[in-house]
Amino acid sequence: MPDLAALLSPRTVAVVGAAPDPQVLRGRTLKMMLRHPYGGRIYPVSRSHPMVQGLRAYRSVAEIPQRVDLAVLIIPAEFVPDELERCAKAGVRAALILASGFAEEQGGEGAELQRRICDIAQRYDLAVCGPNAEGYANMAAALCPTFSPAVDELEGPLVPEWRTSGHVAVVAQSGGMGFAFYDRARPKEIPVSYVVTTGNEACLESFDIVDYLLDEGRSEVFLMFLENIKNARTFVRVAEKALKAGKPIVVAKIGQSEAGQRAAASHTAALAGAYESYRAMFRRYGIIEGADIEEMVDIAAGFSSYRDRLPAGPRVGICTASGGGGGWMADACTQAGLQVPELEPEARARIDPHLPPYGTSQNPVDGTAQAIRQIGYSELARLTGLSERVDTVVVVTSARNPEVHERERENLFRVARETRKPILMWSYTLPSPAAVKLLSQAGYPLYTTMRNCARAVAAMTQYRARRERMLRIPVIRDSVGEGPRERVRDRLAAAGPVLTEYEAAALLSEYGIAFAKARLSSSAEDAVIAAAALATPVALKVQSPDIPHKTEADAVALGIEGAEPVRRAYETVMASARRHKREADIHGVLVQSMAAPGLEMILGIQRDALFGPMLLAGLGGIHVEALRDVALAPVPVSSEQAAELLEGLRGRRLLEGFRGAPAADIAALIDLMVKLSGFAADHAASIATIDLNPVIVHAKGAGVTVVDALIVKRPDSQEEPCPQSNP
Amino acid sequence: MPDLAALLSPRTVAVVGAAPDPQVLRGRTLKMMLRHPYGGRIYPVSRSHPMVQGLRAYRSVAEIPQRVDLAVLIIPAEFVPDELERCAKAGVRAALILASGFAEEQGGEGAELQRRICDIAQRYDLAVCGPNAEGYANMAAALCPTFSPAVDELEGPLVPEWRTSGHVAVVAQSGGMGFAFYDRARPKEIPVSYVVTTGNEACLESFDIVDYLLDEGRSEVFLMFLENIKNARTFVRVAEKALKAGKPIVVAKIGQSEAGQRAAASHTAALAGAYESYRAMFRRYGIIEGADIEEMVDIAAGFSSYRDRLPAGPRVGICTASGGGGGWMADACTQAGLQVPELEPEARARIDPHLPPYGTSQNPVDGTAQAIRQIGYSELARLTGLSERVDTVVVVTSARNPEVHERERENLFRVARETRKPILMWSYTLPSPAAVKLLSQAGYPLYTTMRNCARAVAAMTQYRARRERMLRIPVIRDSVGEGPRERVRDRLAAAGPVLTEYEAAALLSEYGIAFAKARLSSSAEDAVIAAAALATPVALKVQSPDIPHKTEADAVALGIEGAEPVRRAYETVMASARRHKREADIHGVLVQSMAAPGLEMILGIQRDALFGPMLLAGLGGIHVEALRDVALAPVPVSSEQAAELLEGLRGRRLLEGFRGAPAADIAALIDLMVKLSGFAADHAASIATIDLNPVIVHAKGAGVTVVDALIVKRPDSQEEPCPQSNP
Repeated sequence: MPDLAALLSPRTVAVVGAAPDPQVLRGRTLKMMLRHPYGGRIYPVSRSHPMVQGLRAYRSVAEIPQRVDLAVLIIPAEFVPDELERCAKAGVRAALILASGFAEEQGGEGAELQRRICDIAQRYDLAVCGPNAEGYANMAAALCPTFSPAVDELEGPLVPEWRTSGHVAVVAQSGGMGFAFYDRARPKEIPVSYVVTTGNEACLESFDIVDYLLDEGRSEVFLMFLENIKNARTFVRVAEKALKAGKPIVVAKIGQSEAGQRAAASHTAALAGAYESYRAMFRRYGIIEGADIEEMVDIAAGFSSYRDRLPAGPRVGICTASGGGGGWMADACTQAGLQVPELEPEARARIDPHLPPYGTSQNPVDGTAQAIRQIGYSELARLTGLSERVDTVVVVTSARNPEVHERERENLFRVARETRKPILMWSYTLPSPAAVKLLSQAGYPLYTTMRNCARAVAAMTQYRARRERMLRIPVIRDSVGEGPRERVRDRLAAAGPVLTEYEAAALLSEYGIAFAKARLSSSAEDAVIAAAALATPVALKVQSPDIPHKTEADAVALGIEGAEPVRRAYETVMASARRHKREADIHGVLVQSMAAPGLEMILGIQRDALFGPMLLAGLGGIHVEALRDVALAPVPVSSEQAAELLEGLRGRRLLEGFRGAPAADIAALIDLMVKLSGFAADHAASIATIDLNPVIVHAKGAGVTVVDALIVKRPDSQEEPCPQSNP
Repeated sequence: MPDLAALLSPRTVAVVGAAPDPQVLRGRTLKMMLRHPYGGRIYPVSRSHPMVQGLRAYRSVAEIPQRVDLAVLIIPAEFVPDELERCAKAGVRAALILASGFAEEQGGEGAELQRRICDIAQRYDLAVCGPNAEGYANMAAALCPTFSPAVDELEGPLVPEWRTSGHVAVVAQSGGMGFAFYDRARPKEIPVSYVVTTGNEACLESFDIVDYLLDEGRSEVFLMFLENIKNARTFVRVAEKALKAGKPIVVAKIGQSEAGQRAAASHTAALAGAYESYRAMFRRYGIIEGADIEEMVDIAAGFSSYRDRLPAGPRVGICTASGGGGGWMADACTQAGLQVPELEPEARARIDPHLPPYGTSQNPVDGTAQAIRQIGYSELARLTGLSERVDTVVVVTSARNPEVHERERENLFRVARETRKPILMWSYTLPSPAAVKLLSQAGYPLYTTMRNCARAVAAMTQYRARRERMLRIPVIRDSVGEGPRERVRDRLAAAGPVLTEYEAAALLSEYGIAFAKARLSSSAEDAVIAAAALATPVALKVQSPDIPHKTEADAVALGIEGAEPVRRAYETVMASARRHKREADIHGVLVQSMAAPGLEMILGIQRDALFGPMLLAGLGGIHVEALRDVALAPVPVSSEQAAELLEGLRGRRLLEGFRGAPAADIAALIDLMVKLSGFAADHAASIATIDLNPVIVHAKGAGVTVVDALIVKRPDSQEEPCPQSNP
């Protein structure tokens, strides 16, 4: 295992290519390292200068009189592989490659150089970050091997000294964006533990860094900027570990749009995956998606202050001296999915004595300037938080003039210390640095953007709920025993590339998935006998791996009753099939009981190139196709996860009974989703897609009927699927 | 007409209640006025002090030796009405009432005081702003009769001196929010002309102020914070005037949520209307809705710089030195509804020579740090803007270090001057004040929030398109002549409170709205004859004002054919109707041709308490009810507006032909919407609601069939409807 401590907390650092001139990149990086009170040793390596920026320089890493943990390489790309190998031979444990000109470059040469780096790293078990990275900053060690100006022109220390917990780690593929998070967070007095930019990720990728930082323990929240994920296994393992540890990850994943994908692909040589699959994976692991730098920093600020006191529910109490600001915040909270309930009479009775007649305690609590002068924001917040109907308190304030909060300093500190419900502040004016500092010292996150404040509350609420649900869910029991699993595996291996309904049904039924009663018939007479045995109106459907879309081929007949009609239907279906595809390999015609009416759903399995099989669910007909109302989740899903998936559908009201229709059998639908996802997870290596279209969901208690199925196998079953764990 | 110039640009101001102590409200307002270089005369009025803050004080307004334009009243609410009358008698033309304790207070006393203010204002034709206002600031006159600290502790002048155009006026019901806009805009070097806070709006309301400022001419963009609109006529007139003048209005309307409405209602005594109607009105007049202070200021910044060069289309070129930042911005632009197309080869050929091999000109154009060093952001932006595929250029930059942009100062100025396409800048780091100033002087709006930059481009693009469309639309011709209109008016007046289908059809057909062929029958024999004459399968539907919902009453029979079935259906329908409501006044049974199949739509007229009749359109069935997929617009609508309305439906793809279904006859549907809206506009005074449910839209060229209609009259037809003009 490469030693990430050597990379991120080295005691000795060699700067290979260091230059005396701090205006050039090679000089600037060394200057940045020397500028901060790093406690370890720094050795410049230079062939042309005996002294660099006041330090004795060595002609090569091998000449350095001490074992070197980390080598920072700021030399042209073409020299990097050889130098890396020299470093490794000299006992260096880790390398940071700042140079550009690797896989992000057009033409194959850079890619070849990058492959060589990879080889060397593996051979010598080196922890290698980059290339094409902007370096990192370890704030506690005051070590900044980077050329980013964000850690240069600082007025104060790298981290506010009074913040002893709630540290935020930034891990970003883009150097510019990575340090931009720090640039925004520092003036807000938010403590950052690390900024690590990973560039092309030739060896270590973002989630390797997060993995290490989780173990290292000094970071409690993660801000990530991702162009892609290279290793789904690492992602799944680390995301689960973070969730279990209660250390939230807030992520920006670029490449949502085609142009964004173009940029990601050309920029750090990333191959962007399907964005919808990323979202499904993020949802699964409670990872929070952010919309821009400011919003992400603001979400992190909430967790940074209240990771141990997250909101127990979505109900927000708002208090303010500005009626307009309070009302606007109420709208913003509602928009963010939160609730702003009227306070109960007991809570109002505690507040009312402090209000002038033109104030109100209903919620938003408008104390007006008068109540703020008399009891202060902190006391008003405390009283609001005493309401049983409130899980979080948002204070709408003006922090322009620091005296306002200075007057109530002591109580601000006491209330922050004693509150068990998070209290967040939004200043509608730009806060003075003194007010920012005071409120940070007291322990409140202070927001300047209203929407971000509401979003932070919503993210904290959702994270807590999701995490608790995850921790509660037992490991999914084997959906089936070893016997059925083995049988399915063998039969899948033996089957052709496309499994028609009767074949798919035989396999799926091993997992407890029931289909409408049916029999395969190979002649019209056979069909008549089958239909008679079923004793219901029947559907006749051709079964041929060469005709996966039977309806489009007209090779389906529905609602047929009686011997003669069945006979005719058989002939028609066969004739249509032949007409559609003369050479088709036809296994027969399936004679199937017509299903009772119900709500049509579509269930399916799709395969994401990176994350493997995903369960897809949508309402049938126009919902999936015209309205694109579908939900996606990695397999397997638990019943809770399946239920959550259904709740994500815009048309979910249809399931609850609509226009006098009875409520649908959601429990049976969920059961089917769980079983289908278990099937897909067990046989992920062999399956490309599964379609159950449609599934008829009957009224509550009456179950579901699957009336069609199609399995398409993967052309190549060698590659191992991404194993989804079950957090 | 009250004289708003006397209110907002007075030459003489009396401050009634002025106090020496600048710590109290009454002293602070005078101090704020004296602190700025206002050119007019200020007269303190005080009974207890002969001198106030160095000025001679007068015991009453009448004693002031000059005619007073504006009286600022900072005295307790109870004394305000008498003082106001004394002022009026002394020749004062306008009053600003800062005191609280009026209609916003619980109990009736404050409301009574407010009514008295209203009376006096009307009697003496006074321009009265407030009460419960925070005052205003006229930046050009350096006049700040307000106690808001936002115009107090300023380092520089009220407005950046180099900004000679693009001024933004803020008009807000909430004082705190109103001045917060200024507090955010000033550090961004955005020129503000006025901040006017209107409080309870006892007399003048927000759109009266906007009306005056449009005439006055020094404001080019409006930022508004609205709790409600009191006078729909004023709103319509002023909104249209602003749109014609090309002066955009960006608005926050609070009360979207129940809690927000609670706050609005208690705060400035506002009665919040239906939010959906507000949105429909805003759309109609090109008014842009903003989500928070920062976003609104940022949208205004775009218009402030480029009101005369708005984007011709939605295509954005992005250029940057940060690949990650460029990709993220591409996602944000796409999310905002914009496009980020790949540049054409000719444009790329102009850019490529300046890029290193690891840069790219595809769009986002990633120049990397190297190209920026060599040609600068301005040149890269200019080259990007030369692409034919680009309507706007967004520069992703870091403005942390002012030297970066200082180096290319001259070219920055030249490019800004010469560009015909807007160029906006987003800095992913926090910009230095020097960079903010430089870029503002050059003429670029500079954004610190990525999403807001994208949103500003989208708002500018949409505003231009909408305005051009509006100006192009001819005044809606009379949908019908005077004859039909008169006939409908008379028959509506004579009709009962509910008009059933056959009655509604008779009126609507005067406006050219065609129904399925039908005849009212009063006996089974009659029905048989009617059906025979129609010679198609028929529907039979009871016609009774007491049974508006025929289907729920089972008093409808569909698809009936043949004499005997028609006879039986007649009896069944009548029996059901009687069973449903024994005493029902039954006019007969309508025998109607069954319509050919098609897509079901719902059209209707709903009445908004404030804005009058609104046209509602939605796809039939689940779309309206379960998915709440409906669109709303004030009547009348032009065909363009009707088309836009349909485009706003999520399920619009169904109209375009879906799953092999032919495209629907959208032109006929639009024609029906225009006619129905004309009918509603003409007879707004008499109509509460109209339902055409369903309307069957046949395939393109085959028209529409209205198969049911219901008109409910307004219980009281006295009140004048809000006249919708036709911008």
